This record gives sequence, C-alpha cells and structure tokens, in this order.
Amino acid sequence: MKVFKFYGFLIKLMKYAVKIEVCLKSGYSNPEGETTAHLLKELGYQVEKVNVGKVYTVTLNISSPAEAKAVAEEMSKRLLVNPIKDNYTISVVE
Amino acid sequence: MKVFKFYGFLIKLMKYAVKIEVCLKSGYSNPEGETTAHLLKELGYQVEKVNVGKVYTVTLNISSPAEAKAVAEEMSKRLLVNPIKDNYTISVVE
Repeated sequence: MKVFKFYGFLIKLMKYAVKIEVCLKSGYSNPEGETTAHLLKELGYQVEKVNVGKVYTVTLNISSPAEAKAVAEEMSKRLLVNPIKDNYTISVVE
Repeated sequence: MKVFKFYGFLIKLMKYAVKIEVCLKSGYSNPEGETTAHLLKELGYQVEKVNVGKVYTVTLNISSPAEAKAVAEEMSKRLLVNPIKDNYTISVVE
C-alpha cells in the first residue's frame, strides 16, 4: 500500500499548456484574410496582406515540457492539422 | 530632383509582419474548443481543456518594428479585437 502511494507520487502529472498555431500554406485561397486586408486598407493602414489562422491552446496533464511538445506534435498530425494545406508551429507555454 | 530622391531614400518603407493572437477570455463559451478537447480525449490524450483562437499575420509597409507594433495595437482595437470578450497579444515577426 505504501509502495503504491510512493509510486503514485513519483509519476505525478503536471499541467502544461501547448500552443499549436495552424495557418494555410501560401497559394491557398484565404478569403477571411483578404477581407480583413481590404478593411484595414480602407481604414488607412499600409497593409500588404493578411493571413488568418487558428491557434489551439491545449492544456495537458503530462510529466514534462518535452513530452508535452511530442504529444502536441502527434495530436496535430492526427487531428488538428491538414499537412496538405496547413503550416503549423508548436510551442510549450507553461 | 536629387534632394527629392535623397528624401525618398530616407523614408523608405520596410516590410514587417506582425502576429496578432486573439483568444476568448475565460468564462466565455468556446464550443469549438470543447469539441476539440472531447475528440482528443477520445483519441486517448490526457487533455484538460482546449481554447481555440485566431491568429492574424499582417504584413505592413512601415518604417520600424516599434511602429509596426503600435499600428498593430491600433488595428486590433479598431477592427480585430472585441475588448469585452477577447484577450490578445501582439508580436513582430520579422
């Protein structure tokens, strides 16, 4: 019983937030970005282009930042990112 | 003519990309995040929560990174961010 408790302490999981930023590759039509660029130009800003993407902030129960990054990479490939048309970057926040 | 050309050189505009990340403040309903969290849990990941936001990468013709940041701040307040329900961060990329 005591040994079990001890092991329970050893594998205590921490919380880490990973940020996964997903943007369309250049060449893909990005209507929301084009509209935003158009509106910003109308407001008088010297905008050349706007790319609109998504950012997923995922809070994970996991043992280390390195593992959090590896898991985020795997999650991106399995669910969040379409490798044909998306670029993505991963960063561990806390 | 030469003077004019000289001034033209002095106020030459550079390209800077600013990244504006917009996320819902906590407390606001975030159905896309909840669905993503649910799907990731079904795939076997120890996910606590997911927040889904937008990231605008705006390429500006402007003279300095400091000015690019100030303009991005102004653009956010005027068009891209709803201060009631959004948190946002700005960073100059290049």
